[in-house]
Amino acid sequence: ARPRVGYYHTGKKPTELIAGIIGNIRVADVQSRPIVIRETCSVYDAIVAIFTEDVGTIVVVSDGGFIEGIISRKDLLKAAMGGKNINELPVTLAMTRMPNIILAAADEPILRAAKKLISHQVDSLPVVEMATVDQIEKFKVVGRITKTNITQLFVNLADS
Amino acid sequence: ARPRVGYYHTGKKPTELIAGIIGNIRVADVQSRPIVIRETCSVYDAIVAIFTEDVGTIVVVSDGGFIEGIISRKDLLKAAMGGKNINELPVTLAMTRMPNIILAAADEPILRAAKKLISHQVDSLPVVEMATVDQIEKFKVVGRITKTNITQLFVNLADS
Repeated sequence: ARPRVGYYHTGKKPTELIAGIIGNIRVADVQSRPIVIRETCSVYDAIVAIFTEDVGTIVVVSDGGFIEGIISRKDLLKAAMGGKNINELPVTLAMTRMPNIILAAADEPILRAAKKLISHQVDSLPVVEMATVDQIEKFKVVGRITKTNITQLFVNLADS
Repeated sequence: ARPRVGYYHTGKKPTELIAGIIGNIRVADVQSRPIVIRETCSVYDAIVAIFTEDVGTIVVVSDGGFIEGIISRKDLLKAAMGGKNINELPVTLAMTRMPNIILAAADEPILRAAKKLISHQVDSLPVVEMATVDQIEKFKVVGRITKTNITQLFVNLADS
């Protein structure tokens, strides 16, 4: 009989064990709640919301909570510098619109979401569920994944 | 003789192996180059720099590259909303000043830096070296650690 205590005979290197552990973690396991505003809001409303919620990016939604766009601190800073009246400037004119938004699904591996954050150089991904409304595919916002979530996960893994 | 191929007998759990690997990584191994502006700049200059460099936070330095403050997109958005002439508003009036800045050292474990990012709710830490100038302790800026660096490290660990 082989000794069992303190022995691992997985045939795997430590780095492969890390990959195995991380490979089992899904977006839903670490995501934060979504922060959204309505598409009828102004740029000023979005700035108030971004300060109130203390987030880097807000999702802009239509009736039913379907994603129409996202707006970041960077977008808002640009809009605030534009010299227009931000109280009357619709958020829809300053946001990034669908389909130019990188999304994540709740059951997607967290590693894949982390790679999207890096390769697309964004701080946050809306987590969405697909829904068909009047034969049109829409994405309902159910959460968000940020570099803060990944940093927290990194700390948890190292400390466990 | 015990079989060697495919066996590990470290007496450690996989999560302890992760902790061991991460424990050997230092700030200097993953840091980015510092992005700085001079303390004589205006808020407008800082906004231009934050867009040009595409970073979330800029370090404000005095002669010799010593840290005096940091300014984030959030600080700049607040300043831009303040109704003052941002061309004439000194960056020093909108920045967070020393000693109210969370710092990192190049030889500090990356896990400790990641924990600072989480616990202090900041996106970036200036990496500094201590220097004594005219008997005053100052901190020379040598790099920066961000949640992007930690996310990239997470991806590298999982993919290795």
